[in-house]
Amino acid sequence: MTKTPPPVILTGDRTTGPLHLGHYAGSLQNRVALQHTHEQYLLLADSQALTDNAHDPEKVRRNVFEVALDYLAVGVDPAVSTICVQSLLPALAELTLLYLNFVSLARLERNPTIKDEIRARGFDRDIPAGFLCYPAAQAADITAFKATLVPVGEDQAPIIEQTNEIVRRLNRQIGRDVLLEARALIPRVGRLPGVDGRSKMSKSQGNAIPLSASDGEIEEAVRRMYTDPGHLRASDPGRVEGNVVFTYLDAFDDDREAVAHLKARYQRGGLGDMALKSRLTDVLKALLGPIRERRSELKRDPDFVMDVLRKGTRKAQNLTAETMAEVREALGLFDLRAS
Amino acid sequence: MTKTPPPVILTGDRTTGPLHLGHYAGSLQNRVALQHTHEQYLLLADSQALTDNAHDPEKVRRNVFEVALDYLAVGVDPAVSTICVQSLLPALAELTLLYLNFVSLARLERNPTIKDEIRARGFDRDIPAGFLCYPAAQAADITAFKATLVPVGEDQAPIIEQTNEIVRRLNRQIGRDVLLEARALIPRVGRLPGVDGRSKMSKSQGNAIPLSASDGEIEEAVRRMYTDPGHLRASDPGRVEGNVVFTYLDAFDDDREAVAHLKARYQRGGLGDMALKSRLTDVLKALLGPIRERRSELKRDPDFVMDVLRKGTRKAQNLTAETMAEVREALGLFDLRAS
Repeated sequence: MTKTPPPVILTGDRTTGPLHLGHYAGSLQNRVALQHTHEQYLLLADSQALTDNAHDPEKVRRNVFEVALDYLAVGVDPAVSTICVQSLLPALAELTLLYLNFVSLARLERNPTIKDEIRARGFDRDIPAGFLCYPAAQAADITAFKATLVPVGEDQAPIIEQTNEIVRRLNRQIGRDVLLEARALIPRVGRLPGVDGRSKMSKSQGNAIPLSASDGEIEEAVRRMYTDPGHLRASDPGRVEGNVVFTYLDAFDDDREAVAHLKARYQRGGLGDMALKSRLTDVLKALLGPIRERRSELKRDPDFVMDVLRKGTRKAQNLTAETMAEVREALGLFDLRAS
Repeated sequence: MTKTPPPVILTGDRTTGPLHLGHYAGSLQNRVALQHTHEQYLLLADSQALTDNAHDPEKVRRNVFEVALDYLAVGVDPAVSTICVQSLLPALAELTLLYLNFVSLARLERNPTIKDEIRARGFDRDIPAGFLCYPAAQAADITAFKATLVPVGEDQAPIIEQTNEIVRRLNRQIGRDVLLEARALIPRVGRLPGVDGRSKMSKSQGNAIPLSASDGEIEEAVRRMYTDPGHLRASDPGRVEGNVVFTYLDAFDDDREAVAHLKARYQRGGLGDMALKSRLTDVLKALLGPIRERRSELKRDPDFVMDVLRKGTRKAQNLTAETMAEVREALGLFDLRAS
């Protein structure tokens, strides 16, 4: 009996800043859980980060290392997961350029994710061409690794649809399935709100708790956390929905029963924000303490981290170059070995 | 005394069909002349050909070899000129993707060459994204080879302007001249008209004389060549301007004095089209005969041709990868060698 090879997951992060609790809840936790049952590739997406940070490559460079630290600190195990640097994989650039010939400008402009992000960044027609092209680059990433599962937020699902369109178009032209379709793995837990209650935790909005937060920073962040503005005295009944402290407890407190009791007491009246926040502070300290410690240990051993990146990138170089060669051959591009 | 290195020329052709007399007059002749005083790279531009031929990669592949045959047949000497295959140079794809971050969508759309070609091909918004992006790809080609001279037709001059904009933007950001600006080398002779008198000789228009034309094909092409529709009898005065036979004689007949005499006689009256065409037929047979012969010799020795392409492509791979590494370092992208 031959063993079925494990499904391949491609995931990763733009290297524009260190990761935070939102990443932990939305993706990092999952990666640590999935790495033993799946073949997992983590892409340090510095090329993609450059599509809207070309003016600041230093930030993008520096954060390749920082994000790698985050991965290792939360428990991504380089013995089973492959961590690699996107800009050092030339086959991804080759596949991207090739795929751009199979996508119309109109189709890229119609992509809802791109549309939203163009709006959010205030780009309009001044959008860098590379930014507009990034759905083709993501199709290259996904297919180069032969990934069939791509963990993404719901808002990124159109990227997977765009990838599969390219895959189908190439496979149809070639006449066999050289490329694999992928499907989005939408995380069970929704997106973690920022400490201010805004929908998205984000460093640039100043509402994030970084994975490297100290105990003091955790206390401070929880202290200013958004609860129920109508809940003025401990004895008042309070709202649980939209109360960030409860959202975080739901996400990180393993004692589900205790959280259920707290919710009931809060809604009835008789539980003050201070007591509630004190519990969350303890939970987050217990969660982030070991991550922070591991992170600073790793930071003191850059050789180890660089070695992980070297090995992972080399493995990814081989794998993605192999895919590019298969696509070249299947499409019938010029081959110097022939005669 | 150290020798100043010769200026670097980058030139090449999209591999969509074998070359014809128009290419010979407009560029091939020049390349043969320039190769001894310049460092010359000839790019078999199969990646660029795919930007509007993604549906027919077989045509693009086949013509890599055909165009290489044309180069060698007209006298491009692989001992001094480097002939290489574009799609086998991953650094060009890497540089293209990088440059796309430094060009806005609006700027690409404003490019007059792109605008004309979109119109000519009837693309509109259905334009393949890769086609829209090709000015960035040409900037990658030119800068990767550190070329400072790029022989192009007048209609392609905006591509050089776009390249130099990218060069200046990167150099400014980096703070030193890592990339070189290039200038267009506009050929002295204008574009050769088709045998039907239309402005451009083109295989797809059916008005071209291929470099591999047989004597019979040359005779036939000259027979149906556009002269002066008002010149009915040999004794009538005829027009020289717009008369394709004279345009070709100007381009290919080395006996300038004899051509001047013929023009005078034709204008005065007393020289028939038959006699005139007979001279051009002889001139073209003398020009194309040896090219055709050399071409068919080379076609019988594909190993030699493939070896030229292997060596040229390997040299170009090293050179372009070196440029990519310099740009990476200058921009400060992530480096696995650091720690």
